[in-house]
Amino acid sequence: MRDHGGDLDQAIRRHGGEMAEWIDLSTGINRRPYPVPPLPDSAFRALPTRAETAELENVARAAWAVPESEPSETLALAGAQAAIQAIPRLAPPGEARVLGPTYNEYAGALGTAGWVVTEVSALEDLAGADLAILANPNNPDGASHRPAALERLAASVGRLVVDESFGDTCPDLSLLRRPAAANVLVLRSFGKFHGLAGIRLGFVTGPATEIAALRAIAGPWPVSGPAIAIGRAALADHGWSEATRARLGTETERIDALARSAGWGLAGGTGLFRLYATPDAAEARRLLAERRIWSRIFPWHPRWIRLGLPGTEAEWERLDRALRAL
Amino acid sequence: MRDHGGDLDQAIRRHGGEMAEWIDLSTGINRRPYPVPPLPDSAFRALPTRAETAELENVARAAWAVPESEPSETLALAGAQAAIQAIPRLAPPGEARVLGPTYNEYAGALGTAGWVVTEVSALEDLAGADLAILANPNNPDGASHRPAALERLAASVGRLVVDESFGDTCPDLSLLRRPAAANVLVLRSFGKFHGLAGIRLGFVTGPATEIAALRAIAGPWPVSGPAIAIGRAALADHGWSEATRARLGTETERIDALARSAGWGLAGGTGLFRLYATPDAAEARRLLAERRIWSRIFPWHPRWIRLGLPGTEAEWERLDRALRAL
Repeated sequence: MRDHGGDLDQAIRRHGGEMAEWIDLSTGINRRPYPVPPLPDSAFRALPTRAETAELENVARAAWAVPESEPSETLALAGAQAAIQAIPRLAPPGEARVLGPTYNEYAGALGTAGWVVTEVSALEDLAGADLAILANPNNPDGASHRPAALERLAASVGRLVVDESFGDTCPDLSLLRRPAAANVLVLRSFGKFHGLAGIRLGFVTGPATEIAALRAIAGPWPVSGPAIAIGRAALADHGWSEATRARLGTETERIDALARSAGWGLAGGTGLFRLYATPDAAEARRLLAERRIWSRIFPWHPRWIRLGLPGTEAEWERLDRALRAL
Repeated sequence: MRDHGGDLDQAIRRHGGEMAEWIDLSTGINRRPYPVPPLPDSAFRALPTRAETAELENVARAAWAVPESEPSETLALAGAQAAIQAIPRLAPPGEARVLGPTYNEYAGALGTAGWVVTEVSALEDLAGADLAILANPNNPDGASHRPAALERLAASVGRLVVDESFGDTCPDLSLLRRPAAANVLVLRSFGKFHGLAGIRLGFVTGPATEIAALRAIAGPWPVSGPAIAIGRAALADHGWSEATRARLGTETERIDALARSAGWGLAGGTGLFRLYATPDAAEARRLLAERRIWSRIFPWHPRWIRLGLPGTEAEWERLDRALRAL
């Protein structure tokens, strides 16, 4: 398995302690999750019906403000990751380019499926690829691109995949609010913004023929009944989403101030995680881990450390004390 | 989507009524499910760790009585269906043979992945295929094969896939209790026997290199946190499994007696469903549906009807009355 956040069992193996003692800031998963509603027995017992899944997909499109007139279609999958696994199979392998540095599973899944993968560091260097993939905003540095720039790019590649897994806090960046281009697929994660990554729910939106092909690759019943029930409730709750966006906006300022006091420079981020430049990221991670706070560092950048946002006030206070003691 | 059982929304569209009024006997899903244990918040919130998933896989192997010395490995996926979707990608497409009539997704998934698929009707006609797939016991007719016969078959095909999704009620048939052949993959379903198909959990067991390849195809976190937590509890509860096997044994005799009184002949079955020969299956299904009992028929056999087992005593009485009134 490639290096990821959320690997708290590794933190415990290396630094000790019990799961419950740790504050896991190694991911961009919201630590104040959407409250799981009571789930009917049928969600666990029965195979999800096509009607239930279609309703989930419709509620999701409304949440993203996809224009009603849009002919694009949306497919629910077991996480945006499941879309990343399936998309390389839509066409015979060719030349793929990934805008990096970014989430390491894009290149991984493309490579497994036989694509020749190149990482480029500027948006314009994606032009000419058979398949181009980028995250908007990007993980871990939060770099973002205006929709118009991506639409221009789409005209110069075979297929463009835009991963909006961290897009819930910046809806203006979303391609889903605009007329869909015929060669663009847009990914969305449910679990990060809603703080429920364990249920495995994500979406891919694109032209009807591509979505039908992805549906055949995924097979019937790719999403669990509990995930469908939770997703339907949560994505219809626009009030919770608005309040959460506002809270995250305030809290990113709060964590940036704490990091600044510790002498760390802001290197980027989104509403769900922040990236800081430190003198020595491995040492910073070790010192936080001594206080049972788990963070993410990157083998390819010795100074960067990524932190998700604490959940409770007690967690904020522990992070504050840990950063002051660095 | 191909024709399946569990399509109760179609029953309602065609025959009316509310979901709760219907008894869904169109699947082989146990209607007296394993009681869902209290689920920790972390199962919904956090990405499943590798350690949790490995523990689930180990508990599953113990439940199936896989010998401790076996070098095979087991991968948990979002249903046996997810294994059916992934296995065609393990090797370049070639000639696949399916022992039919059987579950229609084998040929579907192989075809989507580019395989040339032939359905054969005798076990020995699978010999010579690049990939051979069969269900043991089979769905819908319950036909079964002794492990020794399958081991001989394995020596004459490129790869043998044995789907034991309905194998929980006949453990003596399982290949998992015996030394594993190097070109055999064995599928298991969690949701059918445990009555929790909605959580999407299944397994594939085989040689380490094949399982590693399937793991790469599936990507990280293919199974949800709730499914891992439920699966760990249920598969460790050998007492529940034993009691359920005994109950299903008694109840298959009970439903066969009801069907016999209605003039139906037993055409096969397993501990989780029964297949009956009727004068006119479509008409029998319609008459049961008028009493809000949903069953499964097969476009390729005008006389066969498949029934799962009722759950409660009230459901048994409704089925009894409905069959008497035919």
